[in-house]
Amino acid sequence: MSTNSGETRPVIVQKYGGSSVADAAKISAIARKISDRAETGASLVVVVSAMGDSTDRLIEMAREVSGGRSPEARELDTLLSTGELVASTLMAMAISSAGHPAVSLSGQQAGIRTDTTHGSARIADIDVARLRRELELGRICVVAGFQGLADNEDVTTLGRGGSDTTAVALAAALDAERCEIYTDVDGIYTADPRLVPSARKLAEIGYDEMLEMASLGAKMNPRSIELAAVYDVPILVASTFEDVPGTLIHGGPHMMEVRRAVTAVAVERDVAKITVRAVEDRPGIVSQIFVPLAEAGISVDVIVQNASLEGLTDVTFTVSKADFERTLDLTRQTCAEIAQDVVGNAGLAKVSIVGTGMQNGPGYAATMFDALSSSNVNIEMITTSEIRITCVIASSSVKKAANALHSAFELDAVDV
Amino acid sequence: MSTNSGETRPVIVQKYGGSSVADAAKISAIARKISDRAETGASLVVVVSAMGDSTDRLIEMAREVSGGRSPEARELDTLLSTGELVASTLMAMAISSAGHPAVSLSGQQAGIRTDTTHGSARIADIDVARLRRELELGRICVVAGFQGLADNEDVTTLGRGGSDTTAVALAAALDAERCEIYTDVDGIYTADPRLVPSARKLAEIGYDEMLEMASLGAKMNPRSIELAAVYDVPILVASTFEDVPGTLIHGGPHMMEVRRAVTAVAVERDVAKITVRAVEDRPGIVSQIFVPLAEAGISVDVIVQNASLEGLTDVTFTVSKADFERTLDLTRQTCAEIAQDVVGNAGLAKVSIVGTGMQNGPGYAATMFDALSSSNVNIEMITTSEIRITCVIASSSVKKAANALHSAFELDAVDV
Repeated sequence: MSTNSGETRPVIVQKYGGSSVADAAKISAIARKISDRAETGASLVVVVSAMGDSTDRLIEMAREVSGGRSPEARELDTLLSTGELVASTLMAMAISSAGHPAVSLSGQQAGIRTDTTHGSARIADIDVARLRRELELGRICVVAGFQGLADNEDVTTLGRGGSDTTAVALAAALDAERCEIYTDVDGIYTADPRLVPSARKLAEIGYDEMLEMASLGAKMNPRSIELAAVYDVPILVASTFEDVPGTLIHGGPHMMEVRRAVTAVAVERDVAKITVRAVEDRPGIVSQIFVPLAEAGISVDVIVQNASLEGLTDVTFTVSKADFERTLDLTRQTCAEIAQDVVGNAGLAKVSIVGTGMQNGPGYAATMFDALSSSNVNIEMITTSEIRITCVIASSSVKKAANALHSAFELDAVDV
Repeated sequence: MSTNSGETRPVIVQKYGGSSVADAAKISAIARKISDRAETGASLVVVVSAMGDSTDRLIEMAREVSGGRSPEARELDTLLSTGELVASTLMAMAISSAGHPAVSLSGQQAGIRTDTTHGSARIADIDVARLRRELELGRICVVAGFQGLADNEDVTTLGRGGSDTTAVALAAALDAERCEIYTDVDGIYTADPRLVPSARKLAEIGYDEMLEMASLGAKMNPRSIELAAVYDVPILVASTFEDVPGTLIHGGPHMMEVRRAVTAVAVERDVAKITVRAVEDRPGIVSQIFVPLAEAGISVDVIVQNASLEGLTDVTFTVSKADFERTLDLTRQTCAEIAQDVVGNAGLAKVSIVGTGMQNGPGYAATMFDALSSSNVNIEMITTSEIRITCVIASSSVKKAANALHSAFELDAVDV
């Protein structure tokens, strides 16, 4: 045991989302809390997102100058990375002003190396040497989330919600005690409280359930949950400004004992559907559609292929609304020779029921479809996993669908 | 002679200021001109400043989060560098959209290495390897002005107007044919036309004269002129949007023949004055005041020391208004023990007459003082060089002073 500089203090990684750092007053308020927390002895690494709607404003400018074309992904990445640089430098200044030494680090400076998939790069490696050096100097490190550097020295971004990934990856690389995600909701709920007034907060939830609930009010990034599960990083989701208990996402064994049949209703908006009509039904045709999308870094979610009629079939798949136009363009090019038509609809959403208890129990799908049908919600597509059933529906039906399911699975009464 | 890739085309470096790229429409309009210009066969490197008043907005945010303290220079540099990153990526997107391949490069990616003087770093070296590589691929390189990278991998900025320095330094490093500075005025005038309605545009001007006229409507950065003179880079100052002849700044021998007695009246606003009152008049005392300022990267301009009275003297010096508070704080610390008082005034300006013909002719100073006195302009400080006489006056007197001098030296009638 020694008390000299060789001693390592526990590392906590915190992440603050865009709405938490939306203006100077909020940044200053958070900075004071962070500074106070540092006085308790923890080594703090703080990951920040871009302020408020600044990312949306940058995307809008990119569209304006691109005259109808999709902005180049490489340029868009450097452009968007500036939002987090602004937030991280302002936060470092505010923490210093609140009384604790702090230093901002870009993704590059924080040692985050990625592949070259602009727009949704994957972290390849984190060199924590500089972070460790700054922490040893007693500084709070404020890291610009969402970004990294590719081997060709070009800036990359990790996709929307990428700051969560940055935080969890840094927590894993630094062997942190835990990762704390601060946001404008105070935890994970049985449904988005803005949609379902009777939704209740969960005290804890397993990685696998959370992974299925891409968006439950807390808008956690699935990649970050996956990463947390792999490296066993406990994540606390809590309110930035209210001092109330949050929800702990972890993989502890006691999670098995509190298993519920259906834990929550998840909603994902901004879903777009692309249908390739009357495509020839022969081997290789599906890869001909999807390989170019993968190469363009577009994530395809649900894929449905109808039964073949006279050697022709319809292939329908969903992408995020943000990728809709790019996907439609690309798919039309790809399918010009092999399909009759490519059509799309960007006004969709996904509503899901999630729960580890579902995997051995029957009847959940039937109950779900019945509840939606009783509420006059039309189901456009269906997809399932072991612990989830998802229906794609019209975006306009999201609210009544979520409430109907929350009641049907008796989540209003769940004891948390 | 060969037409293969070994052929080198002439390189032109262009620079567009903040008002030229203030919004998406302006960026798109410039992008079309740049794309057209590239079709004429030149290899183009385009340096851009931050959009419109975005730098001011970033500084304002930094102040807000710093709670009355000066924001840390290291953090401020990374923060401000984002303004040029935004402009450069949007410009690259717009040029691509206009039909010519383009790539944005940050200061770091453009190979610009600097010392570590945050806020006013000096370029130490430029590695043009990547620029050359991109140009050989037929791409227009859009470089984020105003910024570089220090050896410790921290982002630095070159000070206000630093994008001019970036442009001229790149022109020198690339052995460019010339550097074109596009701005919201269409050349260098005998005085700022916004102050002096009878001001006339000059077709050409020498480096030495231009160097003295830090701000003549074109707001050229003196460091960039100095750099251009050393590397003999001709600079064209011209209008971004109007297609009219600009002013060529160069060192050609014919400049000697068109030498005028007084070429122009220069005005520099945003001057601040610091007076150290009743300081002990002994050797070493002046360096005790100025060494800490130099170490803090603060440029001191005019220095005046009054005659000693009873072993005490007053030392007055000017700094830019932007450095005023920092300088006042620092000087008060430095002089706490050795002077009676430190006072300051940030509401000043400099008005100068400039001309290579002045160096051998008498009477220019007398004419200048007489003209100012006749207009009831009080002179606070006086400083001269071989080809310039400068008076520090109240900011509020700038307009009448400039007009009085423009008339007194018959610049209204100059034939350009």
